[in-house]
Order: sequence, then C-alpha cells, then structure tokens
Amino acid sequence: MTTTTATTKAAWRATGVADLSEEALETIDRWWRAANYLSVGQIYLLDNPLLRQPLQRDHVKPRLLGHWGTTPGLTFLYAHLNRAIKEREQSTVYVTGPGHGGPGLVAASYLDGSYSETYSDITQDAEGVRRLFKQFSFPGGIPSHVAPETPGSIHEGGELGYALSHAYGAAFDNPDLLVAAVVGDGEAETGPLATSWHSNKFVNPATDGVVLPILHLNGYKIANPTVLARIPQEELRDLMVGYGHKPYFFEVADDSTESHREIHRRFAALLDEVLDEIAAIKERAAGGDLSRPAWPMIVFRTPKGWTGPATIDGKKTTGSWRAHQVPLANARDTDQHLADLEAWLRSYRPEELFDDEGKVLDDVVSLTPPGHLRMSDNPHTNGGLLLKDLRLPDFRAYAVDVPSPGGAIAEAPRVLGSYLTEVVRRNPDNFRIFGPDEVASNRLQAVYDETDKQWNAEYLSAEVDEHLARAGRVMEMLSEHQVQGWLEGYLLTGRHGLLTSYEAFIHIVDSMFNQHAKWLKVTNHIPWRRPIASLNYLLSSHVWRQDHNGFSHQDPGFIDHVVNKKAEIVRVYLPPDANTLLSTYDHCLRSRQYVNVVVSGKQPAPQFLTMDEAIEHCTRGLGIWDWAGTEAPGEDPDVVLAAAGDVPTVEVLAAADILRRELPDLKVRVINVVDLMRLQDEKEHPHGLSDKEFDTLFTTTKPIIFAYHGYPWLIHRLTYRRNGHGNIHARGYKEEGTTTTPFDMVMLNDLDRYHLVIDVIDRVPSLGSRAAGLRQRMQDARIRARAWTRQHGEDIPEVRDWVWPDVGETGTRKGGPQYHAAQDTGGDNE
Amino acid sequence: MTTTTATTKAAWRATGVADLSEEALETIDRWWRAANYLSVGQIYLLDNPLLRQPLQRDHVKPRLLGHWGTTPGLTFLYAHLNRAIKEREQSTVYVTGPGHGGPGLVAASYLDGSYSETYSDITQDAEGVRRLFKQFSFPGGIPSHVAPETPGSIHEGGELGYALSHAYGAAFDNPDLLVAAVVGDGEAETGPLATSWHSNKFVNPATDGVVLPILHLNGYKIANPTVLARIPQEELRDLMVGYGHKPYFFEVADDSTESHREIHRRFAALLDEVLDEIAAIKERAAGGDLSRPAWPMIVFRTPKGWTGPATIDGKKTTGSWRAHQVPLANARDTDQHLADLEAWLRSYRPEELFDDEGKVLDDVVSLTPPGHLRMSDNPHTNGGLLLKDLRLPDFRAYAVDVPSPGGAIAEAPRVLGSYLTEVVRRNPDNFRIFGPDEVASNRLQAVYDETDKQWNAEYLSAEVDEHLARAGRVMEMLSEHQVQGWLEGYLLTGRHGLLTSYEAFIHIVDSMFNQHAKWLKVTNHIPWRRPIASLNYLLSSHVWRQDHNGFSHQDPGFIDHVVNKKAEIVRVYLPPDANTLLSTYDHCLRSRQYVNVVVSGKQPAPQFLTMDEAIEHCTRGLGIWDWAGTEAPGEDPDVVLAAAGDVPTVEVLAAADILRRELPDLKVRVINVVDLMRLQDEKEHPHGLSDKEFDTLFTTTKPIIFAYHGYPWLIHRLTYRRNGHGNIHARGYKEEGTTTTPFDMVMLNDLDRYHLVIDVIDRVPSLGSRAAGLRQRMQDARIRARAWTRQHGEDIPEVRDWVWPDVGETGTRKGGPQYHAAQDTGGDNE
Repeated sequence: MTTTTATTKAAWRATGVADLSEEALETIDRWWRAANYLSVGQIYLLDNPLLRQPLQRDHVKPRLLGHWGTTPGLTFLYAHLNRAIKEREQSTVYVTGPGHGGPGLVAASYLDGSYSETYSDITQDAEGVRRLFKQFSFPGGIPSHVAPETPGSIHEGGELGYALSHAYGAAFDNPDLLVAAVVGDGEAETGPLATSWHSNKFVNPATDGVVLPILHLNGYKIANPTVLARIPQEELRDLMVGYGHKPYFFEVADDSTESHREIHRRFAALLDEVLDEIAAIKERAAGGDLSRPAWPMIVFRTPKGWTGPATIDGKKTTGSWRAHQVPLANARDTDQHLADLEAWLRSYRPEELFDDEGKVLDDVVSLTPPGHLRMSDNPHTNGGLLLKDLRLPDFRAYAVDVPSPGGAIAEAPRVLGSYLTEVVRRNPDNFRIFGPDEVASNRLQAVYDETDKQWNAEYLSAEVDEHLARAGRVMEMLSEHQVQGWLEGYLLTGRHGLLTSYEAFIHIVDSMFNQHAKWLKVTNHIPWRRPIASLNYLLSSHVWRQDHNGFSHQDPGFIDHVVNKKAEIVRVYLPPDANTLLSTYDHCLRSRQYVNVVVSGKQPAPQFLTMDEAIEHCTRGLGIWDWAGTEAPGEDPDVVLAAAGDVPTVEVLAAADILRRELPDLKVRVINVVDLMRLQDEKEHPHGLSDKEFDTLFTTTKPIIFAYHGYPWLIHRLTYRRNGHGNIHARGYKEEGTTTTPFDMVMLNDLDRYHLVIDVIDRVPSLGSRAAGLRQRMQDARIRARAWTRQHGEDIPEVRDWVWPDVGETGTRKGGPQYHAAQDTGGDNE
Repeated sequence: MTTTTATTKAAWRATGVADLSEEALETIDRWWRAANYLSVGQIYLLDNPLLRQPLQRDHVKPRLLGHWGTTPGLTFLYAHLNRAIKEREQSTVYVTGPGHGGPGLVAASYLDGSYSETYSDITQDAEGVRRLFKQFSFPGGIPSHVAPETPGSIHEGGELGYALSHAYGAAFDNPDLLVAAVVGDGEAETGPLATSWHSNKFVNPATDGVVLPILHLNGYKIANPTVLARIPQEELRDLMVGYGHKPYFFEVADDSTESHREIHRRFAALLDEVLDEIAAIKERAAGGDLSRPAWPMIVFRTPKGWTGPATIDGKKTTGSWRAHQVPLANARDTDQHLADLEAWLRSYRPEELFDDEGKVLDDVVSLTPPGHLRMSDNPHTNGGLLLKDLRLPDFRAYAVDVPSPGGAIAEAPRVLGSYLTEVVRRNPDNFRIFGPDEVASNRLQAVYDETDKQWNAEYLSAEVDEHLARAGRVMEMLSEHQVQGWLEGYLLTGRHGLLTSYEAFIHIVDSMFNQHAKWLKVTNHIPWRRPIASLNYLLSSHVWRQDHNGFSHQDPGFIDHVVNKKAEIVRVYLPPDANTLLSTYDHCLRSRQYVNVVVSGKQPAPQFLTMDEAIEHCTRGLGIWDWAGTEAPGEDPDVVLAAAGDVPTVEVLAAADILRRELPDLKVRVINVVDLMRLQDEKEHPHGLSDKEFDTLFTTTKPIIFAYHGYPWLIHRLTYRRNGHGNIHARGYKEEGTTTTPFDMVMLNDLDRYHLVIDVIDRVPSLGSRAAGLRQRMQDARIRARAWTRQHGEDIPEVRDWVWPDVGETGTRKGGPQYHAAQDTGGDNE
C-alpha cells in the first residue's frame, strides 16, 4: 500500500455547490470513460488491451464471466465522489452493495494507482493493462466480485443484503468518516437490507460517522424488474422518508438524449448539496444537537448497463435485465458480435485516455484524491492497520469463589457481564456489544453500570427508557442480520466486539457467517490485509434451557454449521462454568482472524473450578477431572465419562456421583471438554490433539460415554479418525423437546444422569449381573422423575437439589452451595 | 373438528359501519374479558380456575412461564374480527406474528368451542378450565407459543419475521379468503418482515385472497422500546404508504381514561371501514380492474400488557417492557404479589362470565361465528383437509434419449422445466413455483410457455417485461426469506409447490427451514392435523459450478443442516442426470410431510441412464452401475468407487474409465447414490439400508473411494455405524474455491478423476509397484490440466471433451454424445 499520509484534517467541510468548469466536467467524464473501458476490458479481453490493433477473436476470452449491468453506475458514482473528496478532503469509504460489479471497483483502484501499489505486477502500462484484463475471473486470477483482493473493500459482493449494515458498522465511532454505500435495487428486496435502513435510529451524529445511502435503481435483477424501480416515485419517496431519510432523486432516463457532460453537471451539484447538508448536520451535532436528523440519501436511477450496447441481436440490452451479466456472451461466435464488442470498447475512445506506453493520461487521473483519501486506499478498509489491542482487565479479578467442586452457584454470563463492564470502561471507543434485544436476557446487564444502549429514535420517560442514551456501547435491534452486519462492519474497520444471541436463532445469520468466514479465510492468504479482531459470539439461552419457549427455540446446530468452514478460522468453546467462561472470553477478545463461538447457559448452575483450575483447564482445552473420577493412578479406567457443555457436565458429574456410591470399585474417568476442536485430529485443526494425547486421555479400548451439548453425531464426525472412535457412545440433542423443566428436557433426549449410568452399565461387560439392580433403579428413577414433573410442573427435588459431594474433605455431603455475589435470580426477562 | 359446514357464500360483503348497540359492545367486551381471564389463568393457575375460593399460593404454578405482553391486543383483535366475520360471513384466517402470545389464541379457541372439539379432555366446565390452565407451558402439556397444537394456526410463534409472508402464501389462489395478519412491532424490526410488506406487489386482486396487516404497536420488546413505536406517526404513515398500503391508525394511549366500551365502538367502526374498503377493491377487481390498489392496513397502538397490573413493586409494568413475559414472576413469594395476582384476575370479573358449572355464559360466546367461520376452525389452517393430489403427467414422456451411458448431453433442470410446464398446465390453481429471481437462471424457463411470473407493480414495455403478468404460477422476488415464507404459507393451507434457489444462498433460510421442519415433526404426532404437501427444493447453480461467481457462492452445507432434523421428515436427493431428476421430482411432488432437498447442476452434462434405468435406480436409491465397473460376477471387487452428485459422478466414471484402460485386471465396482439417506442405518432413517444390504454393496473389507457433492465428513457421519466405515475415504468440497473452470475447481478439492485414480492406487496394496507409473502419469496430468487453464482460461480438451466409452458395443469410443432437444446452451443469465 502507499505510504502517502494525506488524512482527514478537515472533515465535513461545506463547499457550496461547486461551479464546475467545462474542463472539470470533461475530466470527470474522461475518468468515467477510462473506468468503464477498463471494466469492459476485464470482462472480455485476453489480449490487445488498448485496441491498438483491430479486435480479433483470439483477443477475446474463451469463457466470458462477470457482471456488467451494475458497473457503469458504480464507476460514475466513484468518479463524482473522487471529485468531492478531493475538494473537501473527506475521508470516505465506498461500500458496493452490488459487489458483482467487481470490474468497476478494480478499474477504479487501478486508476487510483492503489492497484499497482498493491499488486506490483499490474503495472501502469500496456502490459499491466493486459494483465489486469486477463486475471479477471480467470483461473489463478481474481474473483469477478468485489472481494478481499480488491483494495478499498470491506464488503464481499457475493451475497446481497448487508451493504447498509456493514456501512453503519464502519461508521460507528469514526466521527470523521463518510461511508458512501451503494445499495442495488435487487439487493434492496432482501430482508436484511429492507430493515437496515432503520440503522439511522442508532447513529449518534457527533460521535459516529455518516452513512450516505445511494439507492441505485438500475431497474433489473437477473431476469426480472426490481420492485423499487416499479413503484411510483412518490411512493418510493414516502418509503425513504418513512425510513427516516431525506431522499434526493437523480435520474437518467433509459432513452435520455442529455449529454454526459450535462449529466455530470447535474450530479455534481446534487452531490455537493447532499454533502453540504451532511456538513450542516455535523455542525449542529458538534454544537450539541444530538437528535436524529433526516439524513440525506440519494436515489440514483440510471439505465442498467449504461453506455453498453443498446441492442444485441435486435433485443434491447442496455436498460434491461439482458445487461445484467455478460451482454455479448458469445462475442467470439460471429463477426457481428465481435464487431459489436469492438464498437462498444471503442466508444470509450481509449486512444484519448492512455499514452503511447499504455499509461493512463495525467489529466484523467488528476481526479484522484491524494494518498489515503483515495477510497481504494482508505485505511479503514484494511482494518488491521488501525486495530489496537483491547485494554483488558485481569479476568481473574472477576472469578467466582468455588470453595469445592459444586460449592457455588452462579449464572456464568452474568459473571462475564461484570468483566465486560470493565472492558467497556477501558475501551470507550473501539469495543461494542451487539445483540438482538437479548443483552439483558442473556445476563450481561452489568454493563449498564458503565454504559447504555445507543438509541436515537424517540424517548419517552425514564421509567421505561432504562439505559437508553444517544451514545452507548450496546447496540440492540431485533434483527440478528442487522446486529451481525453492524459487528462485521465494525470489526472489518479495525475494532472489537461481540454478539450475544439465543443459540437457536443464530441460524438466522448462518449465511452471513459463511461470508465473513470466507472473507477471513481468503484474507489469511493476502499479505497486505492485516489481521482483524475475531468475531465473538456468546450464545446463551441455549437448547437445554428454553423453559419459556420450547421446541421452536431448540437448535444447537450452529456449531455444526461453523465447523464446516476452514479449521484455521473457527473455534468452538463450551465452558462448563463461570470461571472457564471468563478465561475463554479473555482469550477470545485477544484473538485475531477467528470466529469464536462460545456457548454458555444463563441459568443458575453449579460451579466446579477455581480460577486457577479454570485457567489450566482452558489452556489444555480438555482434561481429566480427577476429583470426579474413581480411577487408580497409572491404570486405564474401566469407562470414560466425557462431557462438553454446561448441562452435560452436570449430568456427567451426577452420573459419576451415582457410580461412585453404587459401584465403588468401578474405575471411572471423567473428562471435560471446553475447546471442542481439541477432539479433531491435529492434521485437521490447529487445536487438534495428537493421536497419542487423545489415546492417553480416552484410551483406545474402553467404552467412552460422551454427553455433548449439541447434535451427538458431531462428536463422531470430529473423532472418526481416532483409534478409540468405535468405543464412543455419544449422547446429545435429538430434536425432541417442548418440555419446560430442565431435567425433563435432558431425560427426553436420554442425556440425563440416570440414562448415562445405564449407558455405562450396558457398555462395561465386566459389571455383569451385579449391576442389574442399579440399572433397574435408574430406570425407576427416570419414571419417578418424569411423573413428578407431570404432576408438579417442576423437577423432582432429588435432581433439582443435587450437588456434587465434597468427598475430598469429609466423604459426605456438606451444606448446600453458596450463591455467587453477582447472582440475581429474580425477575429477568428471557 | 366440528362438522358444522358454514362456508363463505358471501365473501367480501360490504356492510357499512355497523351501528353497534350498547349491548353488542358489551358482548364484545365480555368476550374480551373472558379471553384475557383465560389467558392470565393459563400463565399462572394450577388450581382454583374460576377463583371460587380466595387465591392461595398452591393455586399458583411453581414455575411461571409464558408471555403476557402481547396477549390482550391479540384477544382484542380476535373479538372484533369475530363480530365482523359473523356479520359478513367472511372466511378468515388469523395469523399471529407475535405467536408467543399463545395463551390468547388458546383462550380464543376455547371460547370458540373448537378447543374442546379438538381436545375432548378440555371440557366446557370448571374442570376443563382447570386442565386448560394447568397444561399451558407445563411438562407434558402444550407449548407457550402459538404452535401446531393450537387450532386455527398455520404459524408457529417461535421465530419472528414471517407473519406476512405466511399470510400472503395462504392468500394466493384463495380469492375469497381474508387473512388477518398481526405483525408485532418487535417482529417488524426483522429483515424478513421488513421486506415482506412488499408482498402486495405480487397479489392479484381477483384471483388471490386479501391480507389485512395489523401492525401491533405495543411499544416494547423483551427489554427495549421498538423502533416503529418510536418514530413520529407521520414517519410511520410515510413508511406504510411507501410500502404500498393505506394505513388506518388506531390508538389507545398508555394513560387513556376512555372506557373500554368507547374503545370497542371506535375499533368496530374502523374495522368496518377497512373491510368495506377491501370489499370495494374486490368489487373493482371482479369488474376487471386488476391494477394494484393501496390495500388498507391497520396500525394498532395499545399498551403492552393492556389490562394487566399498572405497577408491580412500584415499577411501571403495563405499558412497558416489564409486561413482556410474566409480569408477576414471583407471584408465590409474598402476600403482596399473591394479592396483586388475585386482584388482576378478579378485575376481569370471572363471576360474570362463567356459569355455576364453569361453562362460559351463552351471551359471551354469542360473539362466536358458526362452524368453519370460526378462525380457530378455518379449514385452510389445517391444509391437509383441503389438499388435493396434483394431476401429474407421466414424467417418462419427458425423458432424455440416452442411447448409451454418456451418449447424450443435457441440462437436467431444463428437462425438468418441460415436465413442470405440464404440471403447471394441469394444476392451474394449486401449484406454484417460487424463486429468488433464479427460476430462469436455474433453467426452468420452459414453464413460461404455459404461465407467467405474477407481478403487480408497474409495467414498462413488452421487450423488457417478458413473462410478467397480473396472474401467473411463478413467484419471484429477490428475497429467499420471502419466497420461502410464501411457499410455506401456500403449503400449510393445502397446496403444492417448489422453491428453486442457488445452493449456497439457501442457507439464508436455514432458520426458516428449522421452523418448518419442526412444525412437520410435531404435526406428525397430532392426529387431527392432516398431512400437507412436502416442501420441495431444487438447488441448482451448485457449489461445483460457480464460474461467474466463485468462492462466495460455494457452500454445499444446506444438506448438513437439513440432516440434523428428524429423519422422518427430511429427504436428500442427488440425481446424477436428467432422467433421474425427473423420476426424483415426480416422487417429491407426490409426497407428503417431507422436506425434499434435490440438488442438480444446471450446466450441460453427460447423461447416463435411460428412463427405465433411471426409475429403477431411483427406486433403489443407490446401486451398482455394472456397465461402469470391471468386477467379476459373484466376487468382491478390489475397490469400490462411489459417487453422490452429478459432478462427482462424472469424475468417478472418468476415473473408472482410466482404471479400466490402464489396470484392466483391477476389479472396480462403481456405485452411484441418488438418495443420500440410504447410506444411513435403517434404525436412524426410514430410507436407511440394512447392514446386510450395505455390506453387500460396499463390502466390509475393500477400500471405498467416495466422491461426494458436499462436505466429505457427511459421508462419514451417515456411515459411521457401518461395518465398512473404516474403509471409506471420502472426497468432497473443502472450502477451497474461487476458480472459474469446472475441472480446475474439482482439482482444487482433490475430487478430480486423476486424484481418484491416485486414491485407488494408494489404497489397493495389491497393486504394488506396477501402478507406480500410472500414479506418476496421473500427477502429471493434473499439473498439465492446471497449467492449461491458467494459460487458456478454459479446461484442457482431454477433460472437457471426455465421454464415457461405449465399451458394451464396440470396445472403443464412438462418436460424441447427442445434445438433448431441450438443450440451449446460449446466453442464459446466471
């Protein structure tokens, strides 16, 4: 990247509407022609890049791939933003919702010079242009969409819907930053985009940057008109006003005869008016008016494939869906098609834009702003450049006092909340917590001691508007898409954060996770992309405790979804208690380039490890809890009881408790797994145990009863190459639910302590008939427990009040566990 | 269910604004009080259902679960709709977006009488009320949300966002049906809901029913105000007008002193006005005006938890987020709380609503419409009652002529499109095709010979508005959420359909699939719920062929997501060619209560099976392709080459071709898998093979090289209990992508023919050193193929032009394959 250091000394400068000279308008037009020429060239040309020779078949790529339709609109906007940025010295990020217009953004970066700075092989001469063209959507080359490889991008153009969420995420806490966000009218039909307009109710006009949405009405999708281009303009105006914006309309009709110069004049004036209005809002905010303004937005209606061939084979192309992808898809097939392509390319008059060496002429690139004011070189778009480590408190200070295993009760996320409160305090401008109305429900409400929920819609009264403020570190809207998109934008621009959500509904963003994971995977192999902070999930309200909700809220499959992505970027943690959650989250907040999925129940639950033990356990990622087992030193046990997840941990320990009392000579090993990826082979995942370590822990010959938080087959999938795999009997969630008491729920899925004991009996043949009585009593206990819940509506006391016996000290049960200070069981909403 | 047969003889009757008597208003209010009493009772009471005794602690449930806040608004609307339905004899479905207000809908059904008809144990007397109360959100009872168990529901209240999509799905092709759809203001913040307002551009006012959206502004979510309740009313009006609606505003202020009777009078008048306006629109449509009207909608602003306790423990409760769930969460803890609860319950004056036996008084239920006009007994909400079999053509008539394996080239979905054209023709009012702008891209465009895309936004000109019409069987909007929601609503009300989408982006609806799958799973165990048509996916544009797009469009994980759900409802098919696709889809369209996922590539590809062979192969679900292998009859082969998916099938056959030529004495068995679930154990999935069958096919001792369409570990997961599992070496997609030519892509994932041959060599020890030369040549071939694509931008001819040799006839390669007549390789958009 460049080392030029132009920065934004004069943000939000108002210039008035510039009186652009004919020459200035001509420069804009020449830049635009150059960008369009370079775009068409990328899609079609293998050789003869500057058309110095007549176009021949073998100059054209054999497979034509990419998308033209949206491209000329993107380059037009880029040209005009360049002009305004240069005049206003306004640091600007360009988010391209219709990211399939990749050629346009690559062309713009090439004209900016940043492309050649980034990729030294793509030189500023004819050979460089040839390489630029060939590499596009070519084996071994670059993707056809805007992608991590594209300088200046924080927004992969693959899946549509997230342009505005990403843009707002970039703008939060960047008060001097303008984010120009182009929204395609196809994309505008998606759900996530449709709600993301409401982001403007969550912006602080003083402490956040500004998003300028530009709704690009080019009228068509792949094969259909777009909805927003086919409603009356007054209706569209109402919609945008209803979304809280002040819309500015700009139109170039399909059959326009207006000169490009006049079109440029009109748009330049409109853009100046809009930017001046933003400057005025910013000035009012600086003066203390933090109320929500009607932020301007632009409706930009231009023909799809603008400047492309009007017709192809007699069919209307420009201004129709036929321009969406590669209009001349068979350019090599006939002389006519080849001539059509050549005429199209020559219509940009490349001979007026490049010098003899193939370098773009100076007057064309005179439109380019300096250094980091180039949108393709804005440091915010390579967030790792700006990323600072979080100032983290010592998480040990928030530890739950655990006098003995099971000797305390706490709600783990509530404890984490206390720690996060200090994280918020120490990092007032680069850390935010995001949630779909679930931050308090998921028990992180301690953070409201330090900060508020940022809110810029209307206020009513203090008694109902608790913890709402114009500025705050917590961002809540009831849209998983929105908060995920905000967080992604925030992280991609070099900040930190976490998202807390119900476990079942995080599937809503499966596809967004996919795109972010792919972005991270690709950037790991792009040297100039600097590492960004990890995307941290805290999934509470998990599958086993949906007492208020039931079956519809039960799905632990996000973990399965996540582990399909590259091992180098995904991490899954299932801390069994509060201290392990603290240790885990400290690790997550320090990490880079990962997606960390942390699942932790929010209900009061027994605590097992002291802080020191928790740190050691988390460092190992999994380990034997020898205080819970009955094995003899140096010998293999008779059976391994393993748990991953907080509810399974309790059931495994309760089963171990029964076994110790009932079958005292049975050698039981108890293993707890925090870091799920440790189960995988070291060749498959960087966290994977070696086979030797795995064999030592789990044995190669003894039965392994594995109680797992999620769908049980994931345990098989993660361990299928292990020697002892054939001995694993995994229990987990089986899509049986709808019960409302905790133990009834685990019984329904055969994950309960009694069933685990039965599993042990059934898999340890040496027990023979002497365990038959116990087996029967376990079955009876289950029937009794179920009958109790059916009658009383709550769990049977022998289960509800079970605590781990402190055999270490007295050999008998002591008094009940202590409630942790941060505990408050009363009246939380869920 | 009842056998009363009141039907909709007089749909869309205009009545004018009724001049309701004081007595009529009192009846509405008494019904509402009864419904609210029954709702509060469900949440809190274990006994003493009619408060005939003073309330005591043990009358209150020990665990209080559920959601009160939205409930009184839902019952208010239900009461008023009852009054209007009865007067207008208007068949009406009630969709409850805020479905966590389950108690309200159960109460309404109880007052309708339909609850006792459906569940005979819940009688119309004091004991019935007690049971009604106890079962709610109680172990062994009913869910706290609106659910399949709730009479009159087609909409699970678990995950928010789909109320309007479901409502429109129900309305399509039901011209006499009114769907009153309550949208919560929390739900309104979700992306899917935000775009679903635009459904009104896809409604035909003559041939479809009417959706009446009622935006319930109760102001709060779990712990936050809602966005739409905190923007100025004028802004909200603009938003609704911008969405294409004519909004009617109704407000009951938080501090209102207006009598309930006056409130009822106001709302009854407003509802009449709205329904008359709908009747007028319907009349205009009947007269031929099919243009899009501004459909009315209602903004219904009432206090959250309306009629509940104003304050609890001194904190404002009604009219705040504190009323969201269980306002008196600790009702048993103190005398004061118990007294608060009793006062709240008695405020509905149950003694005026129930007779001595505990039966609701006749004048209260005199509001109830007769028979199927009861919203809780509308037959459309138990779609299986109305479901008719599709009239299906003989799919054999659409077969591709396959003179020999590989002897034809076709695009499978295009062939399916011809068949679907006839399905559309024969089923003009109960079959629709849904897609997010991808029906043509996915090659089903033959259907436009018979039908159009339904569109009721603006039209421009014939040259760009191809196949758009006011009525049509194809529904396209660029929102996977929207089209999935429409299809679900359409199926749940007893019709048929399919959804075609890009494979990668179907993850967008992962969570919607979850909810629908859970609905099906639960209804399988509810006898009165009749089976509905399966939800059929056609995923084309799959992971292996994203030439235009690349890495962001590559994700085959929807299959993994789907197989997490109950085996009894999910089916996954990977037909290897067009004839198997035809046979598969015929089966899917006849099936009930499944989700069928069918993945089929859209690119020209070799065809292998004749129609008869395809039918046999699909019937088995998997089988040996003996024409492709080299095994000796009656002997185990040396190696098994298995394929699931079209691209893997080609690579496996090409590998088999190489092996046959190069190692003619190696005994190779070739297996093809269409029905993925056949791999599972018969104990795990109804389609699963027995171990004996599996062992016979795959052997228990020989190496199995398995080329699979998706993430390879799914093959391990499905087969981990099989005897031969340890011998399986699965190849599939590994999150490596971004190349633009087909063979380069499979090479990148080691799924290519050359690598499969290497796999065989490495796993058949008996080959010894004699295969070393072949192994080296395979490696060389890969390097050569990769270098070729890097240079030429397309696949090396030896791969691109490979065809299966027809050894059966001549032992040598014959002339190239024939292109299928339905084939048209030119210029499709993707």
